[in-house]
Amino acid sequence: MNRIEIFPVTNLPIVKEGDDLASLICKAAEKQGTPLQNGDVIVVTHVVVSRAEGNVVNLEKVTPSEFAKTVAETTGKDPKLVEAILRESRSIVRMSDGKLITETKQGVVCANSGIDRSNVPGNSNVAPLPEDADCSARMIRQKIMQTVEKDVAVIVSDTHGRPLRQGEINIALGVAGFKPLRDRRGEKDLFGYTIRIKRTAIADELASAAELVIGQTNEAVPAAIIRGYPYPKSETAKATKLIRSREEDLFI
Amino acid sequence: MNRIEIFPVTNLPIVKEGDDLASLICKAAEKQGTPLQNGDVIVVTHVVVSRAEGNVVNLEKVTPSEFAKTVAETTGKDPKLVEAILRESRSIVRMSDGKLITETKQGVVCANSGIDRSNVPGNSNVAPLPEDADCSARMIRQKIMQTVEKDVAVIVSDTHGRPLRQGEINIALGVAGFKPLRDRRGEKDLFGYTIRIKRTAIADELASAAELVIGQTNEAVPAAIIRGYPYPKSETAKATKLIRSREEDLFI
Repeated sequence: MNRIEIFPVTNLPIVKEGDDLASLICKAAEKQGTPLQNGDVIVVTHVVVSRAEGNVVNLEKVTPSEFAKTVAETTGKDPKLVEAILRESRSIVRMSDGKLITETKQGVVCANSGIDRSNVPGNSNVAPLPEDADCSARMIRQKIMQTVEKDVAVIVSDTHGRPLRQGEINIALGVAGFKPLRDRRGEKDLFGYTIRIKRTAIADELASAAELVIGQTNEAVPAAIIRGYPYPKSETAKATKLIRSREEDLFI
Repeated sequence: MNRIEIFPVTNLPIVKEGDDLASLICKAAEKQGTPLQNGDVIVVTHVVVSRAEGNVVNLEKVTPSEFAKTVAETTGKDPKLVEAILRESRSIVRMSDGKLITETKQGVVCANSGIDRSNVPGNSNVAPLPEDADCSARMIRQKIMQTVEKDVAVIVSDTHGRPLRQGEINIALGVAGFKPLRDRRGEKDLFGYTIRIKRTAIADELASAAELVIGQTNEAVPAAIIRGYPYPKSETAKATKLIRSREEDLFI
């Protein structure tokens, strides 16, 4: 029986700019009695990745543009925060009182361009999404492989809202070491019927599974280990493949 | 450390109309060495629920309406299948070659009103979504509690596509025994910042986690057990709370 286990990575130190996140995770996993193994999936929340990469914006140093001020009035948000959001945005999808939905430069549609205020030290500091989350994941994976000589997969995750459903779920912003979509077209079901349009977004499902132990408010657990999932390996796959543009979309 | 385990429920018989799904799951779990425990989350795919409930449509007996024939031409689908889809629909959201996105009577926006062709025995049989998946989940939970005297949570799940993301993920159509949304507003983060707009769709995350062992084409595994997740209990909560109507939506 294919049991899957999910372990939180506990007792990580507060991650700050320049920290070697991969080594910190390897050490913490070792210390808590779950050293990394070949085939593990390591899920890391984007906030600690952004912090390790120094991708943190001090709002006190941000000067809002005229447009940012106008948007801040419409949405009831801090003009400096709006300016930081706009700098990460390709377009504004929707705005209203308290809400600012944008399409990020990476093509992700989400609230506030994914900028996180929580779990960032310093009252006026916020963490944007990693500039290239696939690259961040790739670097963490490489460093883990160097440090403990285990072949693992890595996901950089974000919790975000989604169209037509209430509440937020964790999704994959960046991946390394495996294909984020498992293509099942052509497989047969139990009764011999050939599946025709089945592609499972396993990277998003793994990210959601990880959040069951991560929680988002408890920064002491910014990472999780998923053990026992036979992912389809790939050295080149990217999570950007999971993005469907608004133009291509069928639901909206 | 809060480890979570996910077990597939293997060696279930082919589920047919009138079967007592809850007892079958209890027996299979016992037999494979993972008897149900208090606090387990049991995730069951909707297809076996629909089959146990006799909610299967034989397309040979369906007479397509004039409108169904027109839609079938536009979409390139079987007119009888289109008729079955329309009977489950409140409205058509979008259609094009090969695609028919509808809003079901339950309010879920998905492809083909969620009608599944795979894993349904009989060449011309299809399985619509359960009429009231919360009620289905409640009945399965009650029966499990009667059978093995364990207090568990139940999710009836479906794999479906979503706006703005490629690939499908598993979501919760029906729940019993716990709150599908975990409200984190008011909690504080590691640095004392109070979270303001955080509600996690834990039912959807649990459903996605379960699919890591369920797979969708392998009907031998139509259910999973998630152990070790401290869900917020509720005797009355419903998965319909996870639906955001198109009118209320901010993303589209």
